[in-house]
Amino acid sequence: MIENGKKVPQVTVKRLSRYLRVLEHFSEQGYETISSEELANELHVKPSQLRKDLAYFGEFGTRGMGYSVSKLAEVLRKILGLHRQWAIAIIGVGNLGTALLRYKGLNEKGFRVAALFDDDPEKVGSARSGIHIYHVDNLANVVKEKNIQIVILTVPAPAARAAAEAVIKAGIKSILNFAPVSIKTGPEITCLQVDIASELKILSHYLAGQDVSGGKDGKVAIPG
Amino acid sequence: MIENGKKVPQVTVKRLSRYLRVLEHFSEQGYETISSEELANELHVKPSQLRKDLAYFGEFGTRGMGYSVSKLAEVLRKILGLHRQWAIAIIGVGNLGTALLRYKGLNEKGFRVAALFDDDPEKVGSARSGIHIYHVDNLANVVKEKNIQIVILTVPAPAARAAAEAVIKAGIKSILNFAPVSIKTGPEITCLQVDIASELKILSHYLAGQDVSGGKDGKVAIPG
Repeated sequence: MIENGKKVPQVTVKRLSRYLRVLEHFSEQGYETISSEELANELHVKPSQLRKDLAYFGEFGTRGMGYSVSKLAEVLRKILGLHRQWAIAIIGVGNLGTALLRYKGLNEKGFRVAALFDDDPEKVGSARSGIHIYHVDNLANVVKEKNIQIVILTVPAPAARAAAEAVIKAGIKSILNFAPVSIKTGPEITCLQVDIASELKILSHYLAGQDVSGGKDGKVAIPG
Repeated sequence: MIENGKKVPQVTVKRLSRYLRVLEHFSEQGYETISSEELANELHVKPSQLRKDLAYFGEFGTRGMGYSVSKLAEVLRKILGLHRQWAIAIIGVGNLGTALLRYKGLNEKGFRVAALFDDDPEKVGSARSGIHIYHVDNLANVVKEKNIQIVILTVPAPAARAAAEAVIKAGIKSILNFAPVSIKTGPEITCLQVDIASELKILSHYLAGQDVSGGKDGKVAIPG
């Protein structure tokens, strides 16, 4: 998942978004304060991990009082850049692109799908869920016109690298790549990869470990 | 992404699947050997990281000779449990479930979608891409009958926890969860979460860092 090194580790940022989700849930339930233990337990992390994650950004909470649910949520929203709205473009309007377009998480507060791109003449010029499909050749213009800052790549693997190059050339700094292809970017670009095939292989690794006899310490025998 | 602690870290297993992809690519190109530098460079990791990752499983390569592409690929396939085929069920035949069903990575060597589940009476009994849609109430029976070992959860967030409970009750040990809900499982279950909203928040965090003025060391100011 991690493509580029950044000051705050991506795993930490990821946990921050989960803390925020829990805080929003507690807020809806009417809670005003929450202890680090309660918040950490909800996400199966250690309270010390939670405190370490928050320490990147300053001092929070009052000793013996816990956190203010609304204040900590507000801080996390700011840290996560959710105090403003980001325009997203999806490149590749196939099954996955269409599913993502309709995915709730993509239309949460803070994000808005502003344009779709494809190179299929039958799709270009039409709309999905009210969002226009542009030809990929118009990427740079549309990115500028619609102030797009996040691109989701759902093109087939063979097209992914060329698409990523065009995206970077258009000035995009944030890419979420669903193609099973590693994309080389400079340090100023954040490229996250959602690699579903890779996730499945993690599952099959642990499954195999359950019914394949391994050596000592869980090591497997290696041929020659 | 990490829900459960296991002997070999999930990040390592994830890299193994990426090494395998590179090796298969090199194999197709006719290469017989590859150095740790070449293999590591393809994935933008340090050669020392590659050697450390492989060291979990034994000794590989010959000093000064590099790795045998075909042998290392074979070992990685075995470590990743790809020497056999795993039957997958997708629960939730909405846009995302349908997209995944047609996703190439889900039908790679080693995996096969064997059953779909939904609770919508209009969907139950029909088929998508030739795969039958069963009612979720029949989960336990179908899991047993079709020897399903991996479940992909693409149900809406409010339904995710109940679905996960039913899945675990049916004896499934491996879950790939796309619902934005943290699922509590015992240590014998591997539950990976693909959290797209969370990935977007990582991107917006780094974007916000580029145009919001932070304090020293990239810290942001925290309200009282």
